[in-house]
Amino acid sequence: MLLAQSSWMEVEDYLKHSDSIVIPIGSIEQHGPNGLLGTDAICPEVIAHKAATLTQMLVGPTFSVGCAQHHLAFAGTITLRPSTMIASILDWTASLQRHGFERIYWLNGHGGNVATVNAAFAESYAQRSFSGEQQATELLHKLQNWWQFESVATLCKQLYPVGDGQHATASEVSVTYAAYPEAQKQVTMEPKIAPTGTITHADDYRRQFPDGRIGSDPSQSSEQDGKQIIQTAAEAVAADFERFAKS
Amino acid sequence: MLLAQSSWMEVEDYLKHSDSIVIPIGSIEQHGPNGLLGTDAICPEVIAHKAATLTQMLVGPTFSVGCAQHHLAFAGTITLRPSTMIASILDWTASLQRHGFERIYWLNGHGGNVATVNAAFAESYAQRSFSGEQQATELLHKLQNWWQFESVATLCKQLYPVGDGQHATASEVSVTYAAYPEAQKQVTMEPKIAPTGTITHADDYRRQFPDGRIGSDPSQSSEQDGKQIIQTAAEAVAADFERFAKS
Amino acid sequence: MLLAQSSWMEVEDYLKHSDSIVIPIGSIEQHGPNGLLGTDAICPEVIAHKAATLTQMLVGPTFSVGCAQHHLAFAGTITLRPSTMIASILDWTASLQRHGFERIYWLNGHGGNVATVNAAFAESYAQRSFSGEQQATELLHKLQNWWQFESVATLCKQLYPVGDGQHATASEVSVTYAAYPEAQKQVTMEPKIAPTGTITHADDYRRQFPDGRIGSDPSQSSEQDGKQIIQTAAEAVAADFERFAKS
Amino acid sequence: MLLAQSSWMEVEDYLKHSDSIVIPIGSIEQHGPNGLLGTDAICPEVIAHKAATLTQMLVGPTFSVGCAQHHLAFAGTITLRPSTMIASILDWTASLQRHGFERIYWLNGHGGNVATVNAAFAESYAQRSFSGEQQATELLHKLQNWWQFESVATLCKQLYPVGDGQHATASEVSVTYAAYPEAQKQVTMEPKIAPTGTITHADDYRRQFPDGRIGSDPSQSSEQDGKQIIQTAAEAVAADFERFAKS
Amino acid sequence: MLLAQSSWMEVEDYLKHSDSIVIPIGSIEQHGPNGLLGTDAICPEVIAHKAATLTQMLVGPTFSVGCAQHHLAFAGTITLRPSTMIASILDWTASLQRHGFERIYWLNGHGGNVATVNAAFAESYAQRSFSGEQQATELLHKLQNWWQFESVATLCKQLYPVGDGQHATASEVSVTYAAYPEAQKQVTMEPKIAPTGTITHADDYRRQFPDGRIGSDPSQSSEQDGKQIIQTAAEAVAADFERFAKS
Amino acid sequence: MLLAQSSWMEVEDYLKHSDSIVIPIGSIEQHGPNGLLGTDAICPEVIAHKAATLTQMLVGPTFSVGCAQHHLAFAGTITLRPSTMIASILDWTASLQRHGFERIYWLNGHGGNVATVNAAFAESYAQRSFSGEQQATELLHKLQNWWQFESVATLCKQLYPVGDGQHATASEVSVTYAAYPEAQKQVTMEPKIAPTGTITHADDYRRQFPDGRIGSDPSQSSEQDGKQIIQTAAEAVAADFERFAKS
Repeated sequence: MLLAQSSWMEVEDYLKHSDSIVIPIGSIEQHGPNGLLGTDAICPEVIAHKAATLTQMLVGPTFSVGCAQHHLAFAGTITLRPSTMIASILDWTASLQRHGFERIYWLNGHGGNVATVNAAFAESYAQRSFSGEQQATELLHKLQNWWQFESVATLCKQLYPVGDGQHATASEVSVTYAAYPEAQKQVTMEPKIAPTGTITHADDYRRQFPDGRIGSDPSQSSEQDGKQIIQTAAEAVAADFERFAKS
Repeated sequence: MLLAQSSWMEVEDYLKHSDSIVIPIGSIEQHGPNGLLGTDAICPEVIAHKAATLTQMLVGPTFSVGCAQHHLAFAGTITLRPSTMIASILDWTASLQRHGFERIYWLNGHGGNVATVNAAFAESYAQRSFSGEQQATELLHKLQNWWQFESVATLCKQLYPVGDGQHATASEVSVTYAAYPEAQKQVTMEPKIAPTGTITHADDYRRQFPDGRIGSDPSQSSEQDGKQIIQTAAEAVAADFERFAKS
Repeated sequence: MLLAQSSWMEVEDYLKHSDSIVIPIGSIEQHGPNGLLGTDAICPEVIAHKAATLTQMLVGPTFSVGCAQHHLAFAGTITLRPSTMIASILDWTASLQRHGFERIYWLNGHGGNVATVNAAFAESYAQRSFSGEQQATELLHKLQNWWQFESVATLCKQLYPVGDGQHATASEVSVTYAAYPEAQKQVTMEPKIAPTGTITHADDYRRQFPDGRIGSDPSQSSEQDGKQIIQTAAEAVAADFERFAKS
Repeated sequence: MLLAQSSWMEVEDYLKHSDSIVIPIGSIEQHGPNGLLGTDAICPEVIAHKAATLTQMLVGPTFSVGCAQHHLAFAGTITLRPSTMIASILDWTASLQRHGFERIYWLNGHGGNVATVNAAFAESYAQRSFSGEQQATELLHKLQNWWQFESVATLCKQLYPVGDGQHATASEVSVTYAAYPEAQKQVTMEPKIAPTGTITHADDYRRQFPDGRIGSDPSQSSEQDGKQIIQTAAEAVAADFERFAKS
Repeated sequence: MLLAQSSWMEVEDYLKHSDSIVIPIGSIEQHGPNGLLGTDAICPEVIAHKAATLTQMLVGPTFSVGCAQHHLAFAGTITLRPSTMIASILDWTASLQRHGFERIYWLNGHGGNVATVNAAFAESYAQRSFSGEQQATELLHKLQNWWQFESVATLCKQLYPVGDGQHATASEVSVTYAAYPEAQKQVTMEPKIAPTGTITHADDYRRQFPDGRIGSDPSQSSEQDGKQIIQTAAEAVAADFERFAKS
Repeated sequence: MLLAQSSWMEVEDYLKHSDSIVIPIGSIEQHGPNGLLGTDAICPEVIAHKAATLTQMLVGPTFSVGCAQHHLAFAGTITLRPSTMIASILDWTASLQRHGFERIYWLNGHGGNVATVNAAFAESYAQRSFSGEQQATELLHKLQNWWQFESVATLCKQLYPVGDGQHATASEVSVTYAAYPEAQKQVTMEPKIAPTGTITHADDYRRQFPDGRIGSDPSQSSEQDGKQIIQTAAEAVAADFERFAKS
């Protein structure tokens, strides 16, 4: 069940038997020569939407722009400052709490979001922790990177024993190719496997990783692989969300 | 051309002959008994995507959650506080400026965004206005409500002479039905045409407008009408963007 | 009754039979060659003070500096950033609510304030909308531009059939001349009627509108006209405030 | 010369031979049984306006609402939070700097503003101090309480050897009576001289000082005294501003 | 009793018979040629720790970095902007209130903190003052500069009849030498007594006070003097805290 | 070399051959029945101070209060909200950059800080990334948890094969006992090894972990072990800092 395509009455009905929701959260940032700028938003979105066909699950709108300052030297990247992202997550959370949601499952598509999202959780919990009063509700956040389920990691390792990489990975590019086959791009990678290193600001990033990739060879990506990964990840999300919703 | 489905190299190429971009901007908020929570984000998004097939135009990701505090008494609504929305728009703008975009065309789907988006423009311009220094670039924002093109208003008036309304309008619901036919909902409206009034906070809104609609009868909406509206609006956007890009 | 010239005991008495207050809100910004920098604050202030002689009405202090970033290329202009203005309006509102005021009527003198003031209202209402709890009070904001009452618009049209304009209007300059006759300035306008256009940042504004006026010929202004406008506007405000106070 | 009653061209002329400006800064807060809520804004305003007749001096608009949280238990008091006041002072300062003002003389009417105004100065200077770069201009702030000139203090002591007090002082009430004779109020004070104590939050303030006064007997106040104080203070301000403008 | 060296159970016990705590608050900033960068944090810390041996008193962690923007032209200085310092003091206060502390005694080592700390107190009190509701607790802040106790001032005057000064004073340097004898530095002062003046931003400060001192000759400082000052100040703090805790 | 015990001239000398600095960063939060509230600040501080005796290294003041909202149900805990901590880290960073420091090595004592500190780094880098301009300097942040050096982890595993735990660990308590032997506390742990779980807000934390410990048995802690750990950790820090300073 997709919140954006539901009416408020349908969401009100959903809330009668569940107080849990999934929010795909991503980033709009360069993903190398053949990867889409929307990769990190598309992956959790398409996986969550598929998962919603496997179990009773409400999927909220995708939080699409995240923390990507380090990619700003590549055209098309859009970022929030961490402080803006924290304020936004607090507003989304306050909105959802108003309706009775107490468990928010953030399905994440971007490693660079992890620190700021966890800081936002702490900011969110702090509002309650400062107050010593007994409270009726129990807000619970969970952040889950889609590529870190064991089943997904195993599949990706099997599909790409070499060059799955750290950024613009073969696996995430495959997921987006399955989602938007018409957006596939044929680009020769040079070098075949990109270098690795550490991330600071945008100019330093571009100097180290001239075409944007880190450690990956996404010329291996394919629509077919993407379908497989989506299916495996969606099953993992569905099962994990069921556990979370009962916790 | 859709930014989220492009690579950074493709955006870099686009920037060689254009410094303009369209950002669909909406809201996630109740739209009455048969309207989708995502209506205000879906409408500008689908219209912009269609417009991008009519002229050379880069469409950025949809800014989907906006100012909807007055709808919070209806399940599923998500809002930013105006101050958070201003901070977010500034970050999107700073990101786009980094790449050389100087003209940002915000195609808006939600009347409740207008004040805050214009405040954000003023905040954005103020950074430059406080500085007396000569600057190389000329950032220009434009906010355009999709339903306010003359051709679109005329068509909607013709399709729905009575009961197009102010919120959860027949025309916007039609646009979403054309975009997501499977999400159409059959609901009897009671009263047929909703009451009208002024908007303050969420509790007052629900008291005045018990099912969420203002002045509308969206039971008139249809996928067929939506297609027509999308086509007409997309043509208007394409032409207006061309003028803007040359201004 | 003017708050600034009342004692707290007098305001406490007023609150026994009314929970409504008028706040004149303006801007300090250039108003062309013969207009006063304080025009937009002076107009609503003088009109509200006059209105307070016509009906029972408490007029608070004038919120004098508003959103004027686009006028910063002209000496003397002072502006708040929209985010600062929102924070200030929230503090004024919280102060007035503390005393039991539930209806705040902002009588506005500056078109450039409208977006930000409405954003501030949304920010103010959002505090309540996020909370699902029943609340004892019903804060209500109203923003009214003094020149948009029908009677006022008609009078101004009659006084200045040509060249009332959009900024540094003949009518507002007349109001300030009636308020401060000693501040009248004789300046030859060149061209007689100023150009029109759209507003972005300060440098662009000055380029388009070299002497600050938009579409106006305020050499027509006179103290006598101003007195008439003040009287008409004050009557409109008094009647409108009475309706608002009872709403 | 009053900024609010000048045109931008007149201010531009002023800037050719001076880069200094006076900003009266006050508060809207209870001032006991016979004192005006606007006292702390009225006093520096009327003194500065008088001073402007004695020397070449530009007086900006009055910053009328300041730090008055401790008076909120008395009807009519309006306050900014200190953080909002700091943001506002930064915006006023940035606006004035844009025009070439480098010396801002804040003539203060409220002891409760002193801490926050000085914090705002530090915030303003910090922007420059963090940057190691050479800068063309030399922003200089000065905060001056009008009652702390030696000549003024001596006069007030002589006029009110007993019961001038700390808040709602006999001398400040006199100044406002000279400014607005029609607003004079006859109230019997009980006790004649109010108690003294320390200031924390609003409820504690009202408990300690039930009618709002601290240590004062403002039933001694008179229009005549006010005129004398205004004259003496204006002379002191004029002389001090001349020194400041040359520093 | 030192909070940082206590367990939570020990603090819980302390709270059974006291709701008061001391927070030493300082600055990290240059203190001339022979003074330590940590002087303003070390002085209140060592005095408070000594005072805690004289009476029952809980000493919290030292708030070590304060408002020192004016010292940034000297290497090693670290500052918060006033707005950041206010936010930090609010968080410390909210934390302490959560545990039941209602009286917070800030023992200050830096004159430059006074304005901002008092602004923070007002911000803290304002949260309560805006609310008209009865509240169970009575938060009380007190700011005390360690050098302003009469006994301490008398002793310092006696030890350094000439050249104690205003910044990098002989007395504060002595206190740090008593605390960290191994950090004593022998530097010839030139001129022997530093100049005096007013403080604005960092570049102006360095121009006026080339070696960082204001009005002082800290070559007079000694470990022996420091011990005496610490003892006298600790006694004054112990007695004053006892009064405060009972107030 | 300790910044707080150095003069500005000594830091200026240091900057002639190094642009790197260590900042110990911790938290003030409960550490179980026998652990100190200051544990997470004390550990990195004492390790860094020891490391500074092993190599040329400047150690700045300890950033002692961090992110500890989840411990607020235990007396004595003090926390910053993540947004406040980010603002503070930006101010420390801007101060250090002013002097020429380009490499800041944050030696961390608290797992709960990691997300927010990394978010602060991103906020800090973003300022540069938004600007496309070439810049002279290369700010580089590094966050290092003291317990995650391989040599340290091996030693702790060897000292406490069972019950080192996740919070209030045997090893960190030992470090503080070595630092402050007089603060050692004998408390019987019940159960001997504390439970484990996940962390959300303060009330939930206390429910799960009634005495504050997670997974640990710190009754094993000793001053002797602490000395060993400090030595091993200090060697690791010294070597790592040397690499960092040259990077």
